[in-house]
Parts: sequence; structure tokens; C-alpha cells
Amino acid sequence: MQKADLINCYARIAPYIHRTPVLSSKILNSLSGADVYFKCENFQRMGAFKMRGAANAVLQLSAEEKRKGVVTHSSGNFAQALALIAQSINIKSYIIMPSNAPQVKKDAVKGYGGEIIECEPTLAAREAAAKKTQDETGAVFIHPFNDADVIIGQGTACMELLEEQPQLDYVFAPVGGGGLISGTALAAHFFSSKCKVIGGEPYESDDAYRSLLSGKIERNISSDTIADGLKTELGDKTFPLIQQYTDSIIRVKESEIIAAMKLIWERMKIIIEPSSAVPFAALLSEKEKFKEKKIGIILSGGNVDLEKLPF
Amino acid sequence: MQKADLINCYARIAPYIHRTPVLSSKILNSLSGADVYFKCENFQRMGAFKMRGAANAVLQLSAEEKRKGVVTHSSGNFAQALALIAQSINIKSYIIMPSNAPQVKKDAVKGYGGEIIECEPTLAAREAAAKKTQDETGAVFIHPFNDADVIIGQGTACMELLEEQPQLDYVFAPVGGGGLISGTALAAHFFSSKCKVIGGEPYESDDAYRSLLSGKIERNISSDTIADGLKTELGDKTFPLIQQYTDSIIRVKESEIIAAMKLIWERMKIIIEPSSAVPFAALLSEKEKFKEKKIGIILSGGNVDLEKLPF
Repeated sequence: MQKADLINCYARIAPYIHRTPVLSSKILNSLSGADVYFKCENFQRMGAFKMRGAANAVLQLSAEEKRKGVVTHSSGNFAQALALIAQSINIKSYIIMPSNAPQVKKDAVKGYGGEIIECEPTLAAREAAAKKTQDETGAVFIHPFNDADVIIGQGTACMELLEEQPQLDYVFAPVGGGGLISGTALAAHFFSSKCKVIGGEPYESDDAYRSLLSGKIERNISSDTIADGLKTELGDKTFPLIQQYTDSIIRVKESEIIAAMKLIWERMKIIIEPSSAVPFAALLSEKEKFKEKKIGIILSGGNVDLEKLPF
Repeated sequence: MQKADLINCYARIAPYIHRTPVLSSKILNSLSGADVYFKCENFQRMGAFKMRGAANAVLQLSAEEKRKGVVTHSSGNFAQALALIAQSINIKSYIIMPSNAPQVKKDAVKGYGGEIIECEPTLAAREAAAKKTQDETGAVFIHPFNDADVIIGQGTACMELLEEQPQLDYVFAPVGGGGLISGTALAAHFFSSKCKVIGGEPYESDDAYRSLLSGKIERNISSDTIADGLKTELGDKTFPLIQQYTDSIIRVKESEIIAAMKLIWERMKIIIEPSSAVPFAALLSEKEKFKEKKIGIILSGGNVDLEKLPF
């Protein structure tokens, strides 16, 4: 992947995304001992960075492909992102969702015009349902993270951040399937001469941490984390980019995630989802190491069920 | 009061306050049928517009007065605001708080360097405690809302809003003691040729609505509202300004306040306190009247106990 891929991507998706603000907080700077810049993808369209990658993948389809629509399997933010970008350019989207997905998530996808196809809540069932939909409709399958165009799209959040704060020493991002962190690492590689990229990951879903240690893609042993967006495992396109371009991964406890989330809600008065709190929790957990550094943090999204808060 | 009072106030307080952002949301525009601009005083220093009025009052004290400090009685946002502006210019603040005030509010005042003086939770006790503190220390008493300098300070939020959106047809603000709404109405009067000001008030604390009807300051019959910042009654300085400069007051039910608050949290991903949701609830409750109008809404603050949410 080249620097030009990111630049072209940005020009392509800019009309379909928000340029999100970069916020800072004196109190959180003082608590962390660092100079922290939060890139607020919780204010992105549909509430998460996923809009960027979905837009980049969909906008590059041919006219013929667009006519047949797109399909993905996701019960999370990528489902909403694909439905919304499809709606924005008037094409059809099919979203494979497990039958036990929360009603609020199904409603959000429907609200963006996506056609939901329910399946059993197993990986095999959702892959089979996606394949069947592709066969029947000719729709193009877009993977939520293990896709070069999606990865590049996610990297544009860090591009924008570095445009505003070119002197960052580090950027922190959460690690789930690896789309955001690998896109972020590419952007830092191409648009900064010094910015290192650190992943934040829950101990309860630490496949990426262990994969970097062993040199091969590891499975999650558990995934009992409040950071529901980070339960996914790395893919064969994201893992090599993480190996090549990220500095390290810091793991955090569930209590640290909740405490970091509460701090951001209380002090910054903004709503972030638990996954978004993981990189700030990672910074706090090793704050001696990052003292007085300029740190960017990607707040990945703000889609949270207000009736099920952890505090 | 003159236009120059507001202009001079703004120059005076600008170094001590944040210029808060004005946000909008396509979804909330579509739900309300209007073109709505939210002035985000929840992002103000200490989390509420009260910082503006406190700063304007304190910064005009003489050197001798400053040496002796300031005192107020408040268990809400004005307590924090007075403590913070006092701390910012290195003077002493004494905050009279009822003994049953929540620990989180006491901690916030202490965090800003205020000296808390506890009293019984009655109006008589807190006025006596304030008087005693004035007598003993020589500190200057600053009223949370019934004070010309405080009122003018609160009006600067609307000044900033009109600078960014000069074509507003209406500005909505919540009504408690009347400091914010009367300052807002002054600003609209001096800085717009057409912008009308509407107050939002809970049915459960509708003294201002009834005062406008009867032509004299009415007492609250009940004050059992979730909008804890709006339980206060009008003062003899705020009421005449409201009579003269506001268009009308719209009352809302508790369920409407909670629904409006949840909409803003979910759709805008920002944290506002219940009082801040009242003007948006008022707009939604009479939305036919405001169809396609350009509406400003003052989101007054974001200080809320995350462990006691109404949803």
C-alpha cells in the first residue's frame, strides 16, 4: 500500500463523511501527565469510524456492481456503516445479522435502509448466509475489516488527526479485527516521520497481543469484555500490517476500561462506547512511559445502549 | 442595561471562559422539523454557562474587594463557577452549601479551591450563613442569578451564538432563577433585529410561566422535577427583564424532558444535564409552530451524576 492510496481514498470519501473534531481536556492531560488529543469518531456519521472504510470500499465498485448492491455480516457498527453509505448513493445493502442481535442494532440498520437477513449466531451460519445472498443477488461482499480498501478508509481518521497535530509522538487506537489499528499505522507511517502507533486491547480479548508475541494469528481464549467492538480476531490482511507498522499493544483490565470511559464522559461531556475507552485506559495504565509526550487517541465510536451502562 | 455592557463584559471575561462550539444534527433537525443550532455550554469550563456570569461579577471587584474574597450560596453549578473563577485569579471563595448536598458536588467545589461552609438545608439558614461569612471575612456576596453583572455575563453565550448564526428566528433557553433567560433575551434584543427568545420550563416548577401571566413573581407550587437546576424561583432583577424581553414560556412534562435528554445523548453523543434538555423538549412539544424556522438552543450544562440517570 502506498501513500497515494490514502490520499486518493480521502478525496473519494470526503463528501460522505464528517471531518470530526479533535478535542482536548486540561483535566485529562493533568491526570495522564501527557498532552492528549482525542480524535472524536464518536461524532462520525452513524456514530463510528467504520463509516470511512465502508465508504472507501463501496465507492470504488463499478456501476454494474453497484446495481446489484453490497452484503456484509456484522452485528455492530460496520452493519450500520455499510447500510448508510449504500443508502447515500442509492444502492441496495444486505446485512447478515445473528438472530440474537439486540433490537436496537437491527432498528439502526433498518433506519439506514439496510435489508436485514437473520441467521443463527455462529460464524459458519453467517458465512453461509452471506454466500447464499451473494449467489442469489449478485451483491458484492464487503468484509468489516479484513479488506484493503476498508483498512485504508479507516486510516483517514489518523490522517486528519496528523494534519491538525503533526507533532504527535504516539497515536493510540483500539484493536479488534485490526482494521482501525492497521489503517492508523499506515497513516502514521506515511504522514509522520516520528509518530509511533500503540494498540489498546482488553485482557479479556487479547488475541492481537499474543499474535504479535507468537508471530502467527492467535485465537481469543475468552471474549468476556465490555468492549463489545473488540471481541473480533485479527484477519490475514490486518495482522501483517500490525506486525510491520505498530509499535506495541498494551492490555487493560475491564475495571480500567470502565474507569477510563467514565472519566471521558464526566470530564469531556461526550459519549463514547466502551471500545473507545480502551486506548485511553492503556495510556493511563502505563502513563510513566508517556509522560509529557504528545499523544493522539482515536475515540472510535459512540454507539452505546444508554439503558445498559456499566456505572 | 446597554449593548455596551454586553460588549464590555465579553472583552472582560473572554480570557477566562471557553468559546463553546455550536453543533447541529441532521436527525434532530428532521425530528423537530426546524433548523436547530445547539450552543454547547456543557463544554464550558466547570461544565456550565454559570462560569460566564460568575466571571463577569468577580472580575469587576476592586483590588480591596478581591483581597477579601467572594461568597455565595449554591448547591449547584454556580458554586463551582464562583470557586473556579476565584481560583483563576487567586482570590478566596466561600461557598455556603446545605449539609445534605451530594458529596460529588462538594468535591467539585473543593477541587476548584472553594472553601465550603455547611448550613441547614433551608433558605433562611443559607442566607444567615452567607451574612455571617460576609461579616466575619469581608467577602463580597455574589448572587447566583439575581445580579445585573451575572445576568449580563450569562447573555454572552447567546452573543456568541448570534455571531455564528445571525439569522436565528428564535433562541430557546431554560428558565430557573432567570439569569440565563434574561441575559439571553438582552443579547437577542441588542444583537439581532428579529430573534425572539422563548423559555423552557418544567410543569413541575412553572413559577416563571405563572409569573408572566399574573404580572408578579409567583412561587413554585411544587418543584419535583428532574431538571434540578430549574427549581429556583425568579428574582426581582430577572423577572422584569423576562417580562420585557422574552416572547413566551413553554412548559414541558417530566417525560418530555427525559425523552429530549435521551435524544440528544443518543444522536449527538454529548452529555447534557436534565435542565439543558428542557428547551429542546419545549421545541418538540410545539414543533408545528416552529416548522422550518432557524432555532438556537442554549444547552446550559453537562454536570450530571452518571450513577443516577433517568434511563
